[in-house]
Amino acid sequence: MGKNLTKRSEDYSKWYNELVVKADLAENSGVRGCMVIKPYGFAIWEKMQAALDKMFKETGHENAYFPLFIPKSYLSREASHVAGFAKECAVVTHYRLKNAEDGSGIIVDPDAKLEEELIVRPTSETIIWDTYRRWIQSYRDLPLLINQWANVVRWEMRTRLFLRTSEFLWQEGHTAHATEQEAIDEALQMMEVYAEFAENHMAVPVIRGTKTESERFAGALDTYCIEALMQDGKALQAGTSHFLGQNFAKAFDVKFANKEGKKEYVWATSWGVSTRLVGALIMTHSDDNGLVLPPMLAPIQVVIVPIYRGLEQLDAISEQVHPLVKELRSKGISVKYDNRDTQKPGFKFNEYELKGVPVRLAIGQRDMENGTYEVARRDTLEKETVPMDEVVAKIEFLMEDIQKNIYQKAVDYRTEHITEVDSYEEFKTELEEKGGFISAHWDGTIETEDRIKEETKATIRCIPIDVKKEEGKCMVTGKRSPNRVLFAKAY
Amino acid sequence: MGKNLTKRSEDYSKWYNELVVKADLAENSGVRGCMVIKPYGFAIWEKMQAALDKMFKETGHENAYFPLFIPKSYLSREASHVAGFAKECAVVTHYRLKNAEDGSGIIVDPDAKLEEELIVRPTSETIIWDTYRRWIQSYRDLPLLINQWANVVRWEMRTRLFLRTSEFLWQEGHTAHATEQEAIDEALQMMEVYAEFAENHMAVPVIRGTKTESERFAGALDTYCIEALMQDGKALQAGTSHFLGQNFAKAFDVKFANKEGKKEYVWATSWGVSTRLVGALIMTHSDDNGLVLPPMLAPIQVVIVPIYRGLEQLDAISEQVHPLVKELRSKGISVKYDNRDTQKPGFKFNEYELKGVPVRLAIGQRDMENGTYEVARRDTLEKETVPMDEVVAKIEFLMEDIQKNIYQKAVDYRTEHITEVDSYEEFKTELEEKGGFISAHWDGTIETEDRIKEETKATIRCIPIDVKKEEGKCMVTGKRSPNRVLFAKAY
Repeated sequence: MGKNLTKRSEDYSKWYNELVVKADLAENSGVRGCMVIKPYGFAIWEKMQAALDKMFKETGHENAYFPLFIPKSYLSREASHVAGFAKECAVVTHYRLKNAEDGSGIIVDPDAKLEEELIVRPTSETIIWDTYRRWIQSYRDLPLLINQWANVVRWEMRTRLFLRTSEFLWQEGHTAHATEQEAIDEALQMMEVYAEFAENHMAVPVIRGTKTESERFAGALDTYCIEALMQDGKALQAGTSHFLGQNFAKAFDVKFANKEGKKEYVWATSWGVSTRLVGALIMTHSDDNGLVLPPMLAPIQVVIVPIYRGLEQLDAISEQVHPLVKELRSKGISVKYDNRDTQKPGFKFNEYELKGVPVRLAIGQRDMENGTYEVARRDTLEKETVPMDEVVAKIEFLMEDIQKNIYQKAVDYRTEHITEVDSYEEFKTELEEKGGFISAHWDGTIETEDRIKEETKATIRCIPIDVKKEEGKCMVTGKRSPNRVLFAKAY
Repeated sequence: MGKNLTKRSEDYSKWYNELVVKADLAENSGVRGCMVIKPYGFAIWEKMQAALDKMFKETGHENAYFPLFIPKSYLSREASHVAGFAKECAVVTHYRLKNAEDGSGIIVDPDAKLEEELIVRPTSETIIWDTYRRWIQSYRDLPLLINQWANVVRWEMRTRLFLRTSEFLWQEGHTAHATEQEAIDEALQMMEVYAEFAENHMAVPVIRGTKTESERFAGALDTYCIEALMQDGKALQAGTSHFLGQNFAKAFDVKFANKEGKKEYVWATSWGVSTRLVGALIMTHSDDNGLVLPPMLAPIQVVIVPIYRGLEQLDAISEQVHPLVKELRSKGISVKYDNRDTQKPGFKFNEYELKGVPVRLAIGQRDMENGTYEVARRDTLEKETVPMDEVVAKIEFLMEDIQKNIYQKAVDYRTEHITEVDSYEEFKTELEEKGGFISAHWDGTIETEDRIKEETKATIRCIPIDVKKEEGKCMVTGKRSPNRVLFAKAY
């Protein structure tokens, strides 16, 4: 199997598209804009889900499930929400097909038209807050901390596997609180959960920040986000957490009786991450040889390839390998022993490199005689010969070391790609020549933000949570600015 | 909290509907036919998913994800499949909404009509086999063993929570094989996986069988099923596994090159269970006091209720309880210590009885003095006083004993409700007066099957896998019959 992978330096976008397909992660389906997530790609998503689900439960959330369909009228209830989401969505208008009378096939039955159209959920605030009205009466019912794992649909005109698809998988948390402060704390807490997941599990460093008004979620008073940087210098929004104020409570009339018996509107948050994270994972670490996966999310953490001539040699190697496989599994390490006789070792090496398996062991006749394994790590492509009785310790070390190493590499790349500029000219030059995040002063107006976007395609990714106060002048208008914000071109 | 639950003997159907809502399992949503699965109900489904997913993986299956939407033309490709599924389904015809020009709200944008309508998947054979055409070239690509966890939509006119809803959650396995025998073996294996899950995890005894032609899945050559019996004497199909022959391979042109390089059509199976299982679980074990859950699927296995006057007593009890909670959790037992001071012990007892928590511990002042707990089991409602140092062992015993006991109770009920009859008169009498499964001879024709269904509402649930050969005469027509089959009224 030749990899024939386009180099990142030649065409980053092409490299990404090819890699997703060649590494068996996903492919386009016969349905426009919808992807098929293949078993290897889905296994990564499952590992992400398991880790996130545990973190959500540890912070007191429970899972539930709400309908796929949203009556059209629900969307209209919250004014800014409908403006943001009503545009591109899948609309169910009929509930039956029938055979055409002329025998030409099946057609939509015109008699089965819905009285009110149903929208395939682009996000579930409206249907959930319509439900919360029945669940919340008293302060004793609060906080309500619920998460949903689901598919959602946003009709996208230009799609890319994992990064932007018409249907995608995600989780959406929807919480209800008695006080404004508690809701804000929840939104901030979930941003932090996302950031810790990105950094500790995905090995993707992120900037925690607040969105500007124009980049906010439709219906939110504040949107907190985590922003990652890809190897082509473009930013990627990896997760958002919204403080929704009382907007949805008012739209759906959700009130609670406080301890004094007085009725008040409930405070809300919502927060989500999606299969887009798989795209971020691929683009952050992978190289011209294929995927590079962090051990914590790799479906196969260790692969063992036997090198042999004839069944007798294979049997001897297998006898050596089986107890090792068992020991590694008992330590929670996922191992594949690839003893297929339909493919040569070179083919297998290539395949696991392409698929980003963190550690590869090879064992041949000489190793058997010397009592060693050849151990190769995917991140640096380094190989070394390790005595059999040290190989478990070596693998345990590599599980941690590869995780740390690729994280540090991503941190270093990002550090090199945050550039402070003070003039619009410099901004444009850095954006085109170097890319990455550009830290600059901005006058706080939507007009200036729009102008910059139009002229350079860069958007304000966020106002970092830990931004330092630094009086300055907007690089475009020269007006006062209390702090720098981060710009970038983004996915 | 008064339970006010209708008695089963008064109105079984009403009892079920009330119980689902009162026990916080699910409720109807604002969208016709679609349910909201509440956190407590979803936690049961999550436990089911985890156990099934493990069983699927242990039998070599991997998870993947395919699109929610199916182009209308795909459904037409397999003739009997379209007849079975095209009728009642949600049809997406447009991809955009817009503001009405007269300001009356949002309307479907007539300019955004899809060229080809999309069907919200009622099941995924067609979209998956369209994909498998790209994945399968050679015998080396087989078997292909894939499962998907997903939501599906079948537009139902009469819905009931969990049992029949327009949208439901399920898993669907779709496998591809080189030979007919391998595909049949796979279909039988998955029926057996379902049966073991039902019996060992849900404590629901099932009959393994084959469906008659008229009850088969649309597009299958054989449908294997597991059939359970509810407490009202009605049967419930709890899972099906289909041998699809080469029907879908032919419809979607999926061929593989065999070892001799000759092209052959692929052999297929599909198999699924859904959130309907939650309905089966509720109806099999629960009683007039509320849910009865098997320990293996109970979200909370043990609840501990303190009985106290004043904070000082509560503190002393908590000091006693905390190490017990910790010890139980370390043994993988899920425990809730309910120290809410907003509710009285009697209220809590009632609530956990309604919610089917298998074991309840209570501890008050006298228990503290005597070094005991009061231990109550939900299945028999028996209480006993247990010394503190024996309580862990007691709970471990109860986890197994309750599981066994409710299974045995269900087996006994079913044994009493399988009745052999030899005349149609007797059949009708037994069906009306006793219910349950009725084992009778049938001439093997669809006409007779239809007539029985029309006249009695009973259907052939299955021909049991272990049916004994017993030459007889059809109870209706008197024609020859090689064995008995099982009839019942069914959900």
